[in-house]
Amino acid sequence: MDEFSFIDSIKQKYYRQPTLLRGVGDDAAVFRQQNRDIVTSVDTMVENVHFSKHTMSLFHAGYRALAANISDLAAMGATPAFYLTSIVIPSDLKAESVTRIFSGMDYLASMYQMDLIGGDTVSGSELSISITVIGYTDSGKARYRSSAREGDVIFVTGSLGDSQAGFHILTNKGEYVEEDYFIRRHRMPSPRAEFAAELQGVRRVSLNDISDGLASELNEIAEASQLTMVVKETALPVSTHYSQFPTQLQYKWKLYGGEDFELVGTVAKEDWESVREAAENTNTPITRIGYVARPQSSHVYLETANGKTPLYKEGYTHLK
Amino acid sequence: MDEFSFIDSIKQKYYRQPTLLRGVGDDAAVFRQQNRDIVTSVDTMVENVHFSKHTMSLFHAGYRALAANISDLAAMGATPAFYLTSIVIPSDLKAESVTRIFSGMDYLASMYQMDLIGGDTVSGSELSISITVIGYTDSGKARYRSSAREGDVIFVTGSLGDSQAGFHILTNKGEYVEEDYFIRRHRMPSPRAEFAAELQGVRRVSLNDISDGLASELNEIAEASQLTMVVKETALPVSTHYSQFPTQLQYKWKLYGGEDFELVGTVAKEDWESVREAAENTNTPITRIGYVARPQSSHVYLETANGKTPLYKEGYTHLK
Repeated sequence: MDEFSFIDSIKQKYYRQPTLLRGVGDDAAVFRQQNRDIVTSVDTMVENVHFSKHTMSLFHAGYRALAANISDLAAMGATPAFYLTSIVIPSDLKAESVTRIFSGMDYLASMYQMDLIGGDTVSGSELSISITVIGYTDSGKARYRSSAREGDVIFVTGSLGDSQAGFHILTNKGEYVEEDYFIRRHRMPSPRAEFAAELQGVRRVSLNDISDGLASELNEIAEASQLTMVVKETALPVSTHYSQFPTQLQYKWKLYGGEDFELVGTVAKEDWESVREAAENTNTPITRIGYVARPQSSHVYLETANGKTPLYKEGYTHLK
Repeated sequence: MDEFSFIDSIKQKYYRQPTLLRGVGDDAAVFRQQNRDIVTSVDTMVENVHFSKHTMSLFHAGYRALAANISDLAAMGATPAFYLTSIVIPSDLKAESVTRIFSGMDYLASMYQMDLIGGDTVSGSELSISITVIGYTDSGKARYRSSAREGDVIFVTGSLGDSQAGFHILTNKGEYVEEDYFIRRHRMPSPRAEFAAELQGVRRVSLNDISDGLASELNEIAEASQLTMVVKETALPVSTHYSQFPTQLQYKWKLYGGEDFELVGTVAKEDWESVREAAENTNTPITRIGYVARPQSSHVYLETANGKTPLYKEGYTHLK
């Protein structure tokens, strides 16, 4: 497959976004946006660092790379619109295999009416997938980590630790209940973009997506807002069959596991009901897990049966 | 250097673009744009494929990677505004070395008042620098390859073949005149963004930047516009001491060499004077090199003393 038939094979037959003026095919893409703010971010996955062929097909790698990026937009309260890709392709990878990466991305993109508007594929020694996403928020409605206030309710979407549980199943021998569910949560996580967009009516929300683990993301909100976050261990949402895994791993994964691409955020008590409604309107499980307190000696505390323990970011690093 | 002090070291102390609402530091950047169209593109450079430490420092690699991206914006007639980076870093590369890549980018970015608004640095086995750029054009003023019309004047900025000449000097023993000039043109090419922006007043311009060689870029305009381009060999602009290189290489480089990041374009005869003025206002050398004709059996012809020869894209591929 030469370069031109390859581009033809990944080029969308039609575009979904009405704001797009020119997609793939010139030196750059062009779009027009009058009334909304534009949100953009980049995220990269390298083979054998961030994913491995042993646990993911190329379709899944493409899907997951875009999911991580959409999750960043969701964490800003933005609705996804466009993406641009840069893929480094090892020489032993056939063009047909590369199209599978694009299929995985397009599978997810089509759910969000996103358009692929630019891309670069270059040769190299290791497979790496870099994606830039562009989305929109209503004017002035981007959500920042620094927006938490004392007295806020802390909430989290979905369930925690599932992605690591799925990875555990894929890499350890054993018999588990609902293996497919956990594996799917690892390979094909669902970023919470619809819920995030549904929050546009709420006055103030702080948001972060759980890419590096709940402890790390809570610390980021706490640091940016210069406050302290207190969460209750028994309140942390886990999926039905999560208890089948070793207790210590359960604890690690739900606090430091990451890659669930759920959202964690805070909102004023009086707006908690609106957030709950936004979750209901978008079929998003949501749980209240704690509250925002005045600054204390640590940024984040976990309330357990044995009292309060500080929760640090570094947990995740230990896991790696 | 840990991740956070590294981010601090590359984070701009202040931002230059008034449209930026939030730069580096949250899940994504946010900007607002009401009256102009937004242009975006991505381009990637891999070590030992697109550049080598033998001919370029890391500072130059960063500079050149951003230059290639700005050149894509220039080819759309857009003014550069933002960039996001994704850098894959081999484990033997120190953080201090990585900051040199960012210094090279910032050196060029500051000339265009561009802001670094997002980035991802991940570990891997080979150095790769991927950049997404975002720029603006006046509403409806993006320049496309498909805009050429029969009778148009074909023009090119600057001089052709210099980048390959510089690479030749760096990789071959020999004594040359003006070595520094040619090496600089290879390592630190000047994308023609100011000239491209100055063209906004001209009604219709087709534009392409010379990244893959003049022959290839002319073919792209001809194909997109479904016309034929005729250029005169003696009219092709070369720099003062270009004639010191072997005749065959001179010919190859100026037609197929690429990476000069000059602009080639077409404009109606009656607007040629406006284009010349835009060049003068921005200190951009410009040369009229041919004309656009009705579709013929080949997309591009070179007029030489021996008559007309078809010019194909593939020349560049042979060179590699």
